[in-house]
Amino acid sequence: MEHKRILLTVSYDGTAYCGWQHQENGPSIQDELEKALEKALGAFTRVTGASRTDAGVHALGQRAHFDTVSAIPPEKYPFVLNRFLPEDIRVTEGMRVADGFHARFQAAGKWYTYRIHNAPHASAILRHCTAHVPVPLQVESMRACGRALLGTHDFAAFAAAGGQAKTTVRTIDAFSVEQAGEEITLRVHGDGFLYNMVRIIAGTLIDVGHGKLDTGCMARAIESKNRLDLGVTAPACGLELTRVEYAFEREG
Amino acid sequence: MEHKRILLTVSYDGTAYCGWQHQENGPSIQDELEKALEKALGAFTRVTGASRTDAGVHALGQRAHFDTVSAIPPEKYPFVLNRFLPEDIRVTEGMRVADGFHARFQAAGKWYTYRIHNAPHASAILRHCTAHVPVPLQVESMRACGRALLGTHDFAAFAAAGGQAKTTVRTIDAFSVEQAGEEITLRVHGDGFLYNMVRIIAGTLIDVGHGKLDTGCMARAIESKNRLDLGVTAPACGLELTRVEYAFEREG
Repeated sequence: MEHKRILLTVSYDGTAYCGWQHQENGPSIQDELEKALEKALGAFTRVTGASRTDAGVHALGQRAHFDTVSAIPPEKYPFVLNRFLPEDIRVTEGMRVADGFHARFQAAGKWYTYRIHNAPHASAILRHCTAHVPVPLQVESMRACGRALLGTHDFAAFAAAGGQAKTTVRTIDAFSVEQAGEEITLRVHGDGFLYNMVRIIAGTLIDVGHGKLDTGCMARAIESKNRLDLGVTAPACGLELTRVEYAFEREG
Repeated sequence: MEHKRILLTVSYDGTAYCGWQHQENGPSIQDELEKALEKALGAFTRVTGASRTDAGVHALGQRAHFDTVSAIPPEKYPFVLNRFLPEDIRVTEGMRVADGFHARFQAAGKWYTYRIHNAPHASAILRHCTAHVPVPLQVESMRACGRALLGTHDFAAFAAAGGQAKTTVRTIDAFSVEQAGEEITLRVHGDGFLYNMVRIIAGTLIDVGHGKLDTGCMARAIESKNRLDLGVTAPACGLELTRVEYAFEREG
């Protein structure tokens, strides 16, 4: 029996979960995937995720690897596992990777999306996948402020306590703020993110958007490395891990 | 005490409800609104909706009227009622209307949106607000077919049993199919819709999109008045009542 390492792409609505990682106080995405794998493969199988998303955070394209001796063709895993998974977790892709591959340590880039519902009253329909902000936000100020993120910087000010990163230097190479009706969407791409970093960025931009903080605050916080130069940590429900990239998927 | 008629705009995620209208077998949107009004006004208050949406159907802009002697300023109703409503129902607007005004009988136009998630695997995040179609759909065929809807026609073929309409003649004056990534969005505007009409249109377009029905089927069904010339009724969860319009809101 040949030993194989399989990489899955996993999408989930994080509303009902205590986060990606196994915890004592509630169901996690990892638990549900491991239960589904046990049913499909007949043996307990540990999965390792690319990102340990928090309670209430969603994912369109989380990635996770596991090892198996099963003969199931890798591309069949979505069909096999979705039979056993709850509706709010879907496996959308399966592929074989090298034995030494690691979903977290080898992640080369990540896209995150943060969604704001900017309207006087909360949304009945979007309540689980947006943060509601009743005060009108100035999108131009948010864009101007966020530009300071681009480049390679020490983002020490952008990390919540509890992170395990060895260095706080990260490279952000794409950032945008789009407005469509009552929805404001922030998108950010980088080589990695510190604990709560995207939610701190989003919370700061919300404060900038209604004039509580000035547009220079992010540039200042990068310089000062002081968390107090930034705004509040925005709610988990607005955040989505959109895509995790690996070197073998890059073009050119 | 002055008697006033108030018109509300109501948004809801219909997933947990048996539909707009009161029913014995489960909670309805109407029930929840009437409970909230009773708490806010101290007296049972009947609400009359513009559209009796089915179980699982959503609304961004349902409208409903009620009568009251309360001194609450009409524009304060969203704040007053949202305190008592569950999170999946939000009142977004309140205004005073003439005593003889009727939310349903005076509706002059309605926008409906039908959302399809067109991807091999269902979406964990969009599962409650889209219909999942795994087979790739040809959007151009769907557009070509749907063009036949435009105009004033006898839509007898487009009605499910159980409707109470006196005539099956309706005017559809806007129709579009947009594709963005894995999402296909149908939008339709008309002066009124028969029972299940938008879901029958959506189901037919899905069948046309994967070649099960030809692009001429809608034109033929308008002619034949035969339900069998059309496709299946698409699932409720993809449907949203987006906006209800009244003559007093029309510009010009």
